Amino acid sequence: MIRLVNGGITAPQGFRAAGVACGLKRQPESGAAPLDLALIAAGEPVAAAGVFTTNLAAAAPILVSRDHLKRSGGLARAIVINSGCANACTGHAGAAAAQEMAAATAAEVGCSKEQVLIASTGVIGVLLDAAKVRAGVIEAARLLDVSGAENAMRAIMTTDPFPKAAAVHVEAPGGVFAVGGMAKGSGMIEPRMATMLGCLTTDARVEPAVLAGALRRVVDETFNAITVDGECSTNDCVFVLASGASGVTVTREDDPYLLEGLRTVAGHLAREIVRGGEGATKLVTVRVTGARSVADAQLAARTIANSPLVKTAIHGGDPNWGRLVAAAGRSGAAFVLEHAGVEIGPVALFVDGVPHDERAGEAASVLAGKTVTIVVNLGTGGSHEFTMWTCDFSEEYIKINAAYRT
Amino acid sequence: MIRLVNGGITAPQGFRAAGVACGLKRQPESGAAPLDLALIAAGEPVAAAGVFTTNLAAAAPILVSRDHLKRSGGLARAIVINSGCANACTGHAGAAAAQEMAAATAAEVGCSKEQVLIASTGVIGVLLDAAKVRAGVIEAARLLDVSGAENAMRAIMTTDPFPKAAAVHVEAPGGVFAVGGMAKGSGMIEPRMATMLGCLTTDARVEPAVLAGALRRVVDETFNAITVDGECSTNDCVFVLASGASGVTVTREDDPYLLEGLRTVAGHLAREIVRGGEGATKLVTVRVTGARSVADAQLAARTIANSPLVKTAIHGGDPNWGRLVAAAGRSGAAFVLEHAGVEIGPVALFVDGVPHDERAGEAASVLAGKTVTIVVNLGTGGSHEFTMWTCDFSEEYIKINAAYRT
Repeated sequence: MIRLVNGGITAPQGFRAAGVACGLKRQPESGAAPLDLALIAAGEPVAAAGVFTTNLAAAAPILVSRDHLKRSGGLARAIVINSGCANACTGHAGAAAAQEMAAATAAEVGCSKEQVLIASTGVIGVLLDAAKVRAGVIEAARLLDVSGAENAMRAIMTTDPFPKAAAVHVEAPGGVFAVGGMAKGSGMIEPRMATMLGCLTTDARVEPAVLAGALRRVVDETFNAITVDGECSTNDCVFVLASGASGVTVTREDDPYLLEGLRTVAGHLAREIVRGGEGATKLVTVRVTGARSVADAQLAARTIANSPLVKTAIHGGDPNWGRLVAAAGRSGAAFVLEHAGVEIGPVALFVDGVPHDERAGEAASVLAGKTVTIVVNLGTGGSHEFTMWTCDFSEEYIKINAAYRT
Repeated sequence: MIRLVNGGITAPQGFRAAGVACGLKRQPESGAAPLDLALIAAGEPVAAAGVFTTNLAAAAPILVSRDHLKRSGGLARAIVINSGCANACTGHAGAAAAQEMAAATAAEVGCSKEQVLIASTGVIGVLLDAAKVRAGVIEAARLLDVSGAENAMRAIMTTDPFPKAAAVHVEAPGGVFAVGGMAKGSGMIEPRMATMLGCLTTDARVEPAVLAGALRRVVDETFNAITVDGECSTNDCVFVLASGASGVTVTREDDPYLLEGLRTVAGHLAREIVRGGEGATKLVTVRVTGARSVADAQLAARTIANSPLVKTAIHGGDPNWGRLVAAAGRSGAAFVLEHAGVEIGPVALFVDGVPHDERAGEAASVLAGKTVTIVVNLGTGGSHEFTMWTCDFSEEYIKINAAYRT
């Protein structure tokens, strides 16, 4: 019913993309100027929705995009994203630069300013150079093509070790439609609120309100269920555009086909962000079971997934289940030590409150892999659970972030 | 009125201490067996109080000590602490071992079991070897002496890079009394709940209920206002014993002399724990001002003090005020970006929502020091503030914790 296909944001019909270098990222001593501006355009204004950071220091582009979605009634023709500068905490000048970014794009793709969504990523506190962006937008608009998804996904990268894209075909009762997407990580990733930058596209025909509802549901289980370092950025956002070009109409926000299509692409991108997290060497699935409520399961999963001691133990390949129990115990979720449990892969190290360290060697072999699943049972007898994705915590994370601006 | 003096827990009259090696810590290839059991004893049962971890996976010694304080009506004659084994998550066998530890101590110092407080620190999930502890207690009781504070403070260390002790003389209207203390860090340090291990002593004469009230107040401003890695341990606790041997009587829990004496010693120990945090190279004071409430100031201070991106930037000497603003913005505290501000030492880098990056070089010189003060104004116009202490986040923290058990 769902089939992974090649491509990303231009896999659905009705979208073109481009990625160009406009000089926002520093050019390396040798080699070409790095791509730093991505443009995605639909053939006409289409249904659009967004989910934004809840950080109260939200960046100028966030405020602009949120406002545009309201004013346009959920219609957009283009998304323009720059890397190399977050345009956050830049005051009135930053707000003006964000407005110019949208206006320049509107002029080039041929729509109203309110039908353009914008996003920025990079260092906080540096004003966006609107002249460079304008030049980049002009070039990108000229290059717009179905084959441009590859450059677009590269243009939004910052410290990401690899680009992230995915696409699927969904066989729904009314016909086949596609969902595509791209995303960037890879630090300042924290799940509680919105997320990093992500763009999804589909050629299903969906009303803006329905699209917004579906996006909200899917983001909570995907982008909002990951963490790299517990940091919610000032610039986090996820956009979705629906071109309708497949002719397949979706009328409900809980439509299982649309949800599954979006979930598959968004889930893949979310896990790719974690796998490419700053300094990450392992992708870790944290599943919390035996909780009194989903909220409790989520609270415990978040605490475990963000615990520096858990993440360093995993990095070291140490099946230190005590740190998992300690994190669950301090999370604020209901927790009954006498019935709690910990499994690393298939190895049960702590069962009904009793340690089984004779299996530590076996668990250590599981931890030696690149992909690890950890299950923590809160021991309350409740049947609720929640799954999150996190990565290990390495010296490399410190190195990257101690020297990010220098 | 307050005078720092030499010594630690035996600086106040009426206390003796000892530290011995009983084989709980692994002996190095070369060199003597490391000290791993500390005993503090009063000449008779004296007023005692404790503050304990709120981690729901609280260790066996926490449960025993909490119970003993209740049963004894706030009287204790001895505190016994082992390192090398946390005796946490060890089930019924662990509970029995903790009981034995208290019983052995009671037999040696001559009091009821309920008049003994116990604590353990080390790896979670390893059962305490009660036979080794018993042998250690017998030796320690034999060595009890006023000069034993030095060995006692060394015996409670785990990954601590240096021992921590402090003592003061307080000139109160009724005469001079002393307060002393010792503590251990240095990972799994999180401020929201209780704290790591700390022992305070005083020779003031204080009723148990008054002593408990004073301890609670002081801990909130000292041990509970520090963080190394945002992790609340299963074994955190702070004890205080009051021998009354100075003849100075304190009758109220808000007595300014007692509070100031306890606060000076506890504050010093708390900051020493941060300075000796795992991998720490800098002691950072985070002061949040301009908050709508103390709770908001505390929330923002905690978020900043625990932010991996803030802590790595400080480690790298990068005056990346954007990360401070982002952390404040995501903290949940009321925050008004347009009026927010950031100072690093005396250098204002962000004033009323406007960056002043021309001062970045000056701020970088401040960050090069071993001790840094950061002020973040939340910009709400409120007058509330809160101060926390944290350390930077280095590759060394990862190294220590990736290999802790191996």
